[in-house]
Amino acid sequence: MNIQQSIHNWMTEHRQSAVRLLKRFVEEASVQGSEKHAQAIVIERLRQLQLDIDIWEPDEKILRSHEAFASNRSTFRDSPNVVGVLKGKGGGKSIILNGHIDVVPPGDLSQWTEDPYTAVVKDGNLYGRGATDMKGGNVSLLLAIQALKELDISLKGDVIFQSVVEEESGGAGTLSCVLRGYKADGAIIPEPTNMKIFPKQQGSMWFRVTVHGVAAHGGTRYEGVSAIEKAAVVLKHIEGLEKERNSRITDPLYNKIPIPVPINIGNIQGGTWPSSVADQVILEGRIGVAPHEKMKNVRAEMKAWLELLPQCDEWFAEHPVDLEWFGAHWLPGEIELEHPLMTSLSSSFYQVKQKQPIIEASPWGTDGGILSQVGDIPTVVFGPGVTEVAHFPNEYICIQTMLDAAEIIALTVADWCSIAD
Amino acid sequence: MNIQQSIHNWMTEHRQSAVRLLKRFVEEASVQGSEKHAQAIVIERLRQLQLDIDIWEPDEKILRSHEAFASNRSTFRDSPNVVGVLKGKGGGKSIILNGHIDVVPPGDLSQWTEDPYTAVVKDGNLYGRGATDMKGGNVSLLLAIQALKELDISLKGDVIFQSVVEEESGGAGTLSCVLRGYKADGAIIPEPTNMKIFPKQQGSMWFRVTVHGVAAHGGTRYEGVSAIEKAAVVLKHIEGLEKERNSRITDPLYNKIPIPVPINIGNIQGGTWPSSVADQVILEGRIGVAPHEKMKNVRAEMKAWLELLPQCDEWFAEHPVDLEWFGAHWLPGEIELEHPLMTSLSSSFYQVKQKQPIIEASPWGTDGGILSQVGDIPTVVFGPGVTEVAHFPNEYICIQTMLDAAEIIALTVADWCSIAD
Repeated sequence: MNIQQSIHNWMTEHRQSAVRLLKRFVEEASVQGSEKHAQAIVIERLRQLQLDIDIWEPDEKILRSHEAFASNRSTFRDSPNVVGVLKGKGGGKSIILNGHIDVVPPGDLSQWTEDPYTAVVKDGNLYGRGATDMKGGNVSLLLAIQALKELDISLKGDVIFQSVVEEESGGAGTLSCVLRGYKADGAIIPEPTNMKIFPKQQGSMWFRVTVHGVAAHGGTRYEGVSAIEKAAVVLKHIEGLEKERNSRITDPLYNKIPIPVPINIGNIQGGTWPSSVADQVILEGRIGVAPHEKMKNVRAEMKAWLELLPQCDEWFAEHPVDLEWFGAHWLPGEIELEHPLMTSLSSSFYQVKQKQPIIEASPWGTDGGILSQVGDIPTVVFGPGVTEVAHFPNEYICIQTMLDAAEIIALTVADWCSIAD
Repeated sequence: MNIQQSIHNWMTEHRQSAVRLLKRFVEEASVQGSEKHAQAIVIERLRQLQLDIDIWEPDEKILRSHEAFASNRSTFRDSPNVVGVLKGKGGGKSIILNGHIDVVPPGDLSQWTEDPYTAVVKDGNLYGRGATDMKGGNVSLLLAIQALKELDISLKGDVIFQSVVEEESGGAGTLSCVLRGYKADGAIIPEPTNMKIFPKQQGSMWFRVTVHGVAAHGGTRYEGVSAIEKAAVVLKHIEGLEKERNSRITDPLYNKIPIPVPINIGNIQGGTWPSSVADQVILEGRIGVAPHEKMKNVRAEMKAWLELLPQCDEWFAEHPVDLEWFGAHWLPGEIELEHPLMTSLSSSFYQVKQKQPIIEASPWGTDGGILSQVGDIPTVVFGPGVTEVAHFPNEYICIQTMLDAAEIIALTVADWCSIAD
């Protein structure tokens, strides 16, 4: 029996225990600041697997001094990162298997058919907040390691499993892993890609644009200047920047994507009284950052673009908008299509699924940006979750797909780290 | 000595007592719900003047059944209206002198040079919230009555002084006066007109338009429909309605007014997250109502106009905007330019100021809409306040102008009600 067959059988036999583990993870509402109970389950599992365990609370002082840091919280007390290392016998390449334990809030509960934290299994799917993004992926990683251990497939390179906090709010958990010194020759992050392989990922930054007007009574609105009217000009102008930035992207991986690096204005808020002319409008949005781009260049380009506003409306010559970069940002990332880790993962995918994987550029950022740009670790994003339901009500994952991903990852790890004699 | 000279001298002699009265009024922060202490000062003064006093709390049940009612409060407990009647000897025309005791909140205190309720006098002006809108005008009314009383000028017609609550939030105080049965042959409201005479006044209504989109992740924003983008279409479309409505206004009184009945979008609020596509934007605004217009026709016109949105963008065919009428509304009002009350007021103005008054259409609504449309009482708006600082920080009134207005109003009342032998 070849190694793939062994791993496949092991996965089939462990389906129920995998479901139980995922259920336990989903039942812990590990939203920002409440990750510790889910991390306790990770720790227990790593202990059972006899990995070298490292548990620490990210140090906000160290993090804050790093330019890649972005978080809306002031402390990580009680929000530990957990790392488990499976030491290799030496002579092989190492790999980081990284997954985040935090989930986004469930939002409007009335839109959920079941309670988001009850983890109901129905028709081969497990439902609940985080099932797809990305506790299912984390279970795939833990299954892969467990299978290799229990099948006595010993490796030359190290396997470094990371269960991190804070991915959903800027990646401080993974940044803390990098700054703590965790390095490897490659990394896989099983974010919900629908089993596609994402060698490139869009980064993004949040910005805030404040548009100024002049207040007046609405009955004599011509005596004021409506910041709401001026905001419409700014919105139009920002659309032009999006067009300009996307016209430069020629990478064929983006051929099927209508807007490779969108600029999204997600919030608008202005005015204080229906019958007053609004003297201020605040726009908040995110700007997509292409895989090869530097954040600081994107910031400079947007600043320069907004300085062109007086060409649209001379009001802005005397009343320029304010541009701030606030809240979260996600570094973009990329790995060469010909990188050996890509080859290894693609070949493992083919062995298991008997077809070629779909390779696409990711429309969203992940902690892969931090691993690759800050840690200089070639990183691939590939996972079993259902992209479409991430952050949505009735989030779910297909259990069989989770097992398939575990099998592919186990094979990739064995190939990448090399099997010791 | 003629009557005008007597009244003029009386005003000059009572300048300090007028300032003391206004100071006491301004010192009471009679914002919505806190009118009673300022009304207590009115009551005390009416008692000194030996008028017939009527004090009552508006009955919200009676008010609510009237179509002109608009208020954001559920009770008027502790917010009394006060009326004082100076009975005439009979055979003359009666007049209502109406002023509101409520003031708008001071807003951002850092923009005030002095505390808004300290009533500082400087360079002939008295500063403070409500000085101009419209406690100064109320003092003019009380001075006029006091002068007529103390100068033994007895009248044939009744003088009905009304100190009402709630003008700033929809006029329920004056509506309650009308529904209580107070009627007269004419009315003067000394709102801050800069001593101009306003025979016509714009009404207005608040509306709320909800624009719908489809949420999506900002990184794949093309999978959603931005309610913020669609709101820009709606804003443009509403501008068209404003143009259409104003093109119909041919009254020469509006010749100098750039937009006789503006539509103002005062609030915009949409989206929940910078990196999500906004699925809803709420626009709140006020639509101006021309003096001759019926509110219900304006509502129907706006509804029909918004139903044309699919011609701008077919999105709206399947996803029409929602239109609600909420919060406050102010009825428009008009009195014929040749009405005897206009003539009487203009002629009194000329006697005191030795020049013709400026006659303009008012850009804002007042309780004059309720007096004229609901009470069928011909109403003129004319007062000493400084239009530009109403509702603004560092609101003030010129004390001499307040005395001039008092003199003009006293003369008008004497003429209108006729002096008894």
